[in-house]
Amino acid sequence: MIFKALALALFALTAPAAWADDLRGTGDLGLIVEREAGSLLVVDRGERAAIGRIEGLGDLSHASLVYSPDERFAYVFGRDGGLTKVDILTQKIVKRVVQGGNSIGGAISDDGKLVAVSNYEPGGVKVFDAETLDLVADVPMGSKTVGIADVPGGRFAVATWDTGEVWLLDHSADPAKPVITKLSGIGANPYDALLTGDGRTYIVGLFGEKGLTAVDLWQDPPKVTRFLPDYGKDQPDLPVYKMPHLQGWTLADGVFALPAVGLHQLLWVDAGSLTEIARTDLAGQPVFATARPDKREIWVNFAPPDNNKVQIVDALTHKVTDTLTPGKGVLHMEFTPRGREVWLSVRDENRVEIRDARTREVLAEIPAKAPSGIFFTDRAHRTGL
Amino acid sequence: MIFKALALALFALTAPAAWADDLRGTGDLGLIVEREAGSLLVVDRGERAAIGRIEGLGDLSHASLVYSPDERFAYVFGRDGGLTKVDILTQKIVKRVVQGGNSIGGAISDDGKLVAVSNYEPGGVKVFDAETLDLVADVPMGSKTVGIADVPGGRFAVATWDTGEVWLLDHSADPAKPVITKLSGIGANPYDALLTGDGRTYIVGLFGEKGLTAVDLWQDPPKVTRFLPDYGKDQPDLPVYKMPHLQGWTLADGVFALPAVGLHQLLWVDAGSLTEIARTDLAGQPVFATARPDKREIWVNFAPPDNNKVQIVDALTHKVTDTLTPGKGVLHMEFTPRGREVWLSVRDENRVEIRDARTREVLAEIPAKAPSGIFFTDRAHRTGL
Repeated sequence: MIFKALALALFALTAPAAWADDLRGTGDLGLIVEREAGSLLVVDRGERAAIGRIEGLGDLSHASLVYSPDERFAYVFGRDGGLTKVDILTQKIVKRVVQGGNSIGGAISDDGKLVAVSNYEPGGVKVFDAETLDLVADVPMGSKTVGIADVPGGRFAVATWDTGEVWLLDHSADPAKPVITKLSGIGANPYDALLTGDGRTYIVGLFGEKGLTAVDLWQDPPKVTRFLPDYGKDQPDLPVYKMPHLQGWTLADGVFALPAVGLHQLLWVDAGSLTEIARTDLAGQPVFATARPDKREIWVNFAPPDNNKVQIVDALTHKVTDTLTPGKGVLHMEFTPRGREVWLSVRDENRVEIRDARTREVLAEIPAKAPSGIFFTDRAHRTGL
Repeated sequence: MIFKALALALFALTAPAAWADDLRGTGDLGLIVEREAGSLLVVDRGERAAIGRIEGLGDLSHASLVYSPDERFAYVFGRDGGLTKVDILTQKIVKRVVQGGNSIGGAISDDGKLVAVSNYEPGGVKVFDAETLDLVADVPMGSKTVGIADVPGGRFAVATWDTGEVWLLDHSADPAKPVITKLSGIGANPYDALLTGDGRTYIVGLFGEKGLTAVDLWQDPPKVTRFLPDYGKDQPDLPVYKMPHLQGWTLADGVFALPAVGLHQLLWVDAGSLTEIARTDLAGQPVFATARPDKREIWVNFAPPDNNKVQIVDALTHKVTDTLTPGKGVLHMEFTPRGREVWLSVRDENRVEIRDARTREVLAEIPAKAPSGIFFTDRAHRTGL
């Protein structure tokens, strides 16, 4: 099985155009970021294989991407401020603009018509036409911005690092002139944020002080709540790259599972009361805590020196049920949409490992150049990704 | 806008092959059942238009369908026992088998490899290879079967009308020889069932007695709980076709919203305790109660004589916030995956109406022959649909 996948992958990579003109569905495709090579590996979930590579995307460290609603195009946000639109069917770059000096993420509107990018340099948010990548709106905010997300109703939410605010941009009436709602007093130096899958709660992580901030977007005006007052870094000189990404949080059955900053623990927080209800001891400093799509299990990967491991925690009992050692540098885990498989980036071994998400059995491997983020096209249909 | 959509639709329908060989993503396509014509209208969400029609599917009354993981193929379950595989890219029937005398629904396994059909005649469940439609397993159950659903882990759940059981078929080890778990004492004459989106809870509606039954599939063995002892039909001669489909239920934020049988009410049930927490008075007998994807609103359609209306209920306040009158015979509502639009089948007016799901504004209309079910391809990625 593994050899077959490798053979298929090698064949496809030497002749990526062979299939590119074939008619095919796009629901089971995906892209894997090869950060140092500045390329994207195109993968087919059904074949468990790589079927091509798109090159020339610039600096892809910390790169992320979003998909168009038809699951054909991806918008890639590079650290170098590049915004690149790629076509996964033809495996080509459609357009590339360098829109800022240092971008850290983006989002696509719920109608698929606008792509927004948040920037460290020059700060603020720029909004582009998803078809042409023409600039539609430029919103300076007097600050670096982080954690941009698509909010239902043609809106975006973003947090400001320098001023401790959350901005809501409503593009539903006029894309070029968003109606802006500013929420202040969020806390010192937001470093990341996440939007829950229903688009209701925007959670902001703080670097400048302890605690987190939740914004309930269903209230009018949105309601700001500080919670977990002891959550955060203990040492003032702890570097930013050790802070767990908030996108690694998971909301399962009314409970958040989140990586404890700097501790070998997973925290369980009641989503209604925003109070801690349990802790689970782990094998290292957690980075991502990702729920299997059925929400029964939380899969956790780790910062060095434990980044060769993955631990699995039962959502009902909060107990570790399994410890896997896929290999050196497990950077990311992506589940297939209905949770039958999980794909793991094993960066330092230049491969992606595919496991049955229930038996944990290794089903296949795909060679990849120092792979990091794995993104399946079903993300096109989900809010906040 | 409406005229443009109609023009596009008419053009496309006279020349459906014109685009069929073009490369395109399949994430924003869909199929609309034209029940009396025995055909499927192929639609493009992005264009808000019909782009073709697939004919020759037999009796499509109460037809439903599921999608392959790549969102290219659909499996259509007809009332006449027909199982038809269609290709939405080429707009052709790939294969059609008449597998039973009277089938009422089907499901596709979480790896996309097996398609299961539940039958009134001859009863039981038949399981087919999704690629070839060859029979893989035939599981007689000594009963008509209803409410089949895909359970995570290569499993199917189904309820038996005559014997009041729930059967779990686990195909994960050997597709041809499912491991069977039988749960008895479910209640008299299950008439329909639903699986929650996380695949945890299988809820069975009863025709032979009052009350409902929930099966917690996370417990080992699965835990059976009877609840809402007053829920159900009041008159022993109430015909089956007045019973609301359980697929019309919605789980939003830990609360089920469900149509009250024979009453002009929506019931709100706490998902944890399975007890009623509120009721909302409605304009008629509800059929479907469907949550907008952000779960903030529940949209309700009605049995005759109120089937020209749609009511919108706020999930926070449980109050009706709007009453729409799209036209005669509103049979089905389907939201776009991130909830920006809702598509409504207006059967008696031979059209599908597209509305902004927030402003309620009519954005476009598509002509269709007595349309009933609307199915967008994003269902491929969701459990229990």
